[in-house]
Amino acid sequence: MASKTLSAADFETPIESRFFEDYLPGAVYEYGSYEVTEAEVLEFASRFDPQRMHTDKLYAQVGPFNGLIASGWHTTAIFMRLFADHFLSKVATLPSPGIDEIRWLLPVRPGDSLKLRTTVVKARVSNSKPDRGLVTTKAELFNQDGQAVMSLLAVNLLFTRPPL
Amino acid sequence: MASKTLSAADFETPIESRFFEDYLPGAVYEYGSYEVTEAEVLEFASRFDPQRMHTDKLYAQVGPFNGLIASGWHTTAIFMRLFADHFLSKVATLPSPGIDEIRWLLPVRPGDSLKLRTTVVKARVSNSKPDRGLVTTKAELFNQDGQAVMSLLAVNLLFTRPPL
Repeated sequence: MASKTLSAADFETPIESRFFEDYLPGAVYEYGSYEVTEAEVLEFASRFDPQRMHTDKLYAQVGPFNGLIASGWHTTAIFMRLFADHFLSKVATLPSPGIDEIRWLLPVRPGDSLKLRTTVVKARVSNSKPDRGLVTTKAELFNQDGQAVMSLLAVNLLFTRPPL
Repeated sequence: MASKTLSAADFETPIESRFFEDYLPGAVYEYGSYEVTEAEVLEFASRFDPQRMHTDKLYAQVGPFNGLIASGWHTTAIFMRLFADHFLSKVATLPSPGIDEIRWLLPVRPGDSLKLRTTVVKARVSNSKPDRGLVTTKAELFNQDGQAVMSLLAVNLLFTRPPL
């Protein structure tokens, strides 16, 4: 894992002992980078999103895309890798109920180096199950030119810290 | 490509000559199936979503998950494969602006056989560029027991049919 924390600020608690209470609304952190390779763009797309703008270099060159562009689902998968490696607790995370507002803002291309910015938007303890809470996080991916290429709202369910 | 149209109804126009006008609000089609293998669950998760419920068979067996479950992003990638193979025009599709309301409703497991149901929700020509339109589609994945495992709202940009 080559990526690391890029922002001055980060969680006070390491990812192996992080619980719901550690996700503070307003906290902003940055992690990266993820290097996008042509081989991975082609392989992901040929398996999961075989549209020519993602799989066919010649077509992509002459089309309006000015070269090969990554599948949007490849971009969200790259988001997830950085999010799992640096943000989501290794011990308290339950399966996510869902994601809102994925926006693919600009093409992602082979050679791009992507950085994740996370902003905790809200956090609330579950009404029905007080041993867990829901954390909503705005996630943004930026390329090496500082352009936002993707954003989404992630909802994650995490256990609260157990009593000592 | 082993999957095929499963519903009695399908587009009247083949995928190689389909344009914006062929996406009729209210139309419901089904496509499948996609067989989920343990090897693919492990490979996808180890690369993009290395959480133990997705990558560690022993952990997943003793945890609350009752066995390995696929990454939600693997499930959306499987949706995309069926969507690209059967639904999205091969000639008129531009990059999608985004996705709303991804809901992971039930675990997807190795051995599952997934079917896609598409429902065109709305379709409107672009105000600023009348040679294209936006199609909003509700997509649902069902497993072999008929249970919905995932749903989302896809927004796709497609060219209108060129004048003869």
